[in-house]
Amino acid sequence: MENFEFVSPTQFVFGRGAELTVGRKLAEQGAKHVLLHFGGGSAVKSGLIDRIVASLDAEGIAHTSLGGVRPNPEITLVREGVSLCKTEGIDWVLAVGGGSVIDSAKAIANGACIEEDVWELFETKRPNASVLPIAVVLTIPAAGSEASKNTVISNDELGMKSGYGNDFQRPKLAFMNPELTFTLPEYQTAAGLTDMYAHLLERFFDDVGAVPVTDNLNLSLMKTIRAEAPRVLTEPDNYDARANIMWAGMLCHQGYAGCGRHEDWATHGLEHELSALNPAITHGAGLAVMFPAWMEYVYAENPARFAFYGSEVFGLTPTGDIEADALSAIDETRAFFASLGMPTTLEELDVCEEDIEKMIPTLRANKGEAFGSFKKLTMDDARAIYRLAL
Amino acid sequence: MENFEFVSPTQFVFGRGAELTVGRKLAEQGAKHVLLHFGGGSAVKSGLIDRIVASLDAEGIAHTSLGGVRPNPEITLVREGVSLCKTEGIDWVLAVGGGSVIDSAKAIANGACIEEDVWELFETKRPNASVLPIAVVLTIPAAGSEASKNTVISNDELGMKSGYGNDFQRPKLAFMNPELTFTLPEYQTAAGLTDMYAHLLERFFDDVGAVPVTDNLNLSLMKTIRAEAPRVLTEPDNYDARANIMWAGMLCHQGYAGCGRHEDWATHGLEHELSALNPAITHGAGLAVMFPAWMEYVYAENPARFAFYGSEVFGLTPTGDIEADALSAIDETRAFFASLGMPTTLEELDVCEEDIEKMIPTLRANKGEAFGSFKKLTMDDARAIYRLAL
Repeated sequence: MENFEFVSPTQFVFGRGAELTVGRKLAEQGAKHVLLHFGGGSAVKSGLIDRIVASLDAEGIAHTSLGGVRPNPEITLVREGVSLCKTEGIDWVLAVGGGSVIDSAKAIANGACIEEDVWELFETKRPNASVLPIAVVLTIPAAGSEASKNTVISNDELGMKSGYGNDFQRPKLAFMNPELTFTLPEYQTAAGLTDMYAHLLERFFDDVGAVPVTDNLNLSLMKTIRAEAPRVLTEPDNYDARANIMWAGMLCHQGYAGCGRHEDWATHGLEHELSALNPAITHGAGLAVMFPAWMEYVYAENPARFAFYGSEVFGLTPTGDIEADALSAIDETRAFFASLGMPTTLEELDVCEEDIEKMIPTLRANKGEAFGSFKKLTMDDARAIYRLAL
Repeated sequence: MENFEFVSPTQFVFGRGAELTVGRKLAEQGAKHVLLHFGGGSAVKSGLIDRIVASLDAEGIAHTSLGGVRPNPEITLVREGVSLCKTEGIDWVLAVGGGSVIDSAKAIANGACIEEDVWELFETKRPNASVLPIAVVLTIPAAGSEASKNTVISNDELGMKSGYGNDFQRPKLAFMNPELTFTLPEYQTAAGLTDMYAHLLERFFDDVGAVPVTDNLNLSLMKTIRAEAPRVLTEPDNYDARANIMWAGMLCHQGYAGCGRHEDWATHGLEHELSALNPAITHGAGLAVMFPAWMEYVYAENPARFAFYGSEVFGLTPTGDIEADALSAIDETRAFFASLGMPTTLEELDVCEEDIEKMIPTLRANKGEAFGSFKKLTMDDARAIYRLAL
């Protein structure tokens, strides 16, 4: 078990009607003027934004709206938000949406408190303790950004997608009402399930030996997602199924599932290039394709780890042949993603062999360094994994 | 899944040498003058207190010592601590020890910020948001007080033991070095294992139906404790085993293992009276006796829940007879505690039938109300459970 430091200070308000308490909870925290940040139409059309505005008005909390966050949120809107915060005297950022909106809100909350352009944080990765407090009304369980320390922002001008991690940007308040997820389209629900499951795989497969307390917690979340996934897909308004998945999605990326481990994150890196190549590719769908390919490429480093995973999560009976058990676990993983309606090949995402060389130059911020920890990957390894995924 | 609010803001510094960073971390938080609070001899004799004092001195942080916390910490020393905080201008309370020291520190941190006598919080249970920040150097994994929202304090004058829960008294910083637990006596290690396992049972068995995400997380911790317990007992200086148990002990009482559930806590209530009757009875030992008795008395309310627990934690194969499966799970629980060297009957704790009536008048603060949630217990139920435990 490796040494670690960990903090997750988010205050969760979970359950029916959670969003109606936004005004009261923010007032308790002393909020005076919030930036109300959201995405496209659904939060407005569903009346959610109206309910939140009413909740803020009831407490006399001023609000300035900034909508229009797109999937793979972009730095231009972030800069607009930063400017609004500085000119309007905003003291809280309130994100209403899924991972893209929350990631955008995190970037804004950093930018509002620093002198330099906010993209520099994504370039330099310098620590920044000065961040506006963030509140979140979650509508899409997937990215886990409602409690995580991470944000990923695209910069179209540079043709880049870059991440920034910082405990100070973990949201202070997260409002999670599972009913808000009843109307999520099936494909988005499935991509979200894949994303959260992938957050567990990235933590489970690394170069640290067994850490039973963390591994068992991680595996327990995999089992929950496996069991609840068919329920949310076939019964989209099943409250308990949606609630279990919503809470699991947060836990998958909060950090407890990786304490004492190095974690890997190579597959997320490989996927980010897919979404950069074609922004229409949903992150979860890209992960569904890339994870089994990565697994096949690397499992020989520690087949016993894969066999253990297969036995715990899929109930596979050990055959006595560790290699065969590992491959069965990979097959089960691919089959699980397929059962959610996710693609299993790059072809299904309209990515072909010629596209591979377009992704390599920007992979890992073009530094050409080996990446990942379960197996250190070179750029040639990355090419091979993309080819396996074709 | 029930609605809930949850927050656990503790910053953890986990691993070898964690305690050497106390001064630096407190300085980062702006601490000027800490109350250094500890128990009896071992923290002093081992040199731990000296190392912490050196760490504080290196950062120019003033410190006032208050040692002598006893097991089942008492209000008199708490009041002394409160008085010190007020007269010396203390701005942080630093607890070095196990649950008793941390619970005492929590009470002091509350008392230092209020006008009335601190015992009134334990009487009235009124919320109190004004609490000195608390840091903890953990030496005994058991109570989980290093991150929990609870404290339990004894009042010898009133012959009472009373709890107080409040998110504002959750420690801000917890330093957890598994090496500090290598020298724990076997009995104390075993009682700690029992206490943390009991914290999971109290959350697992209540009147809410299945909450898979929370239940699976809870069961994963039970499995970890079951697997690691023999290792820490037979190899007391096995770093990884100690580390897994130390982190598990925190997770067992932090709260995630009960999110969305009502929880029960009847058995803790029954045990507190044993420790009040005879302060020499270790909390964990009392729980090892009382939990199987409580289980036998209440399991018929929902035998399927017990059968599920037995199958998940002890790998029991369902027989088709749910009642038999439930009873097997209870037998396994008792056998697990016995395997740790814990007592299995009140007789082993020198408690006899005549003692039962001495405990009833103070049970549940003498209010005579039904308690617990898996099954609502009357005072006659409590008598019956004590008798089952004889």
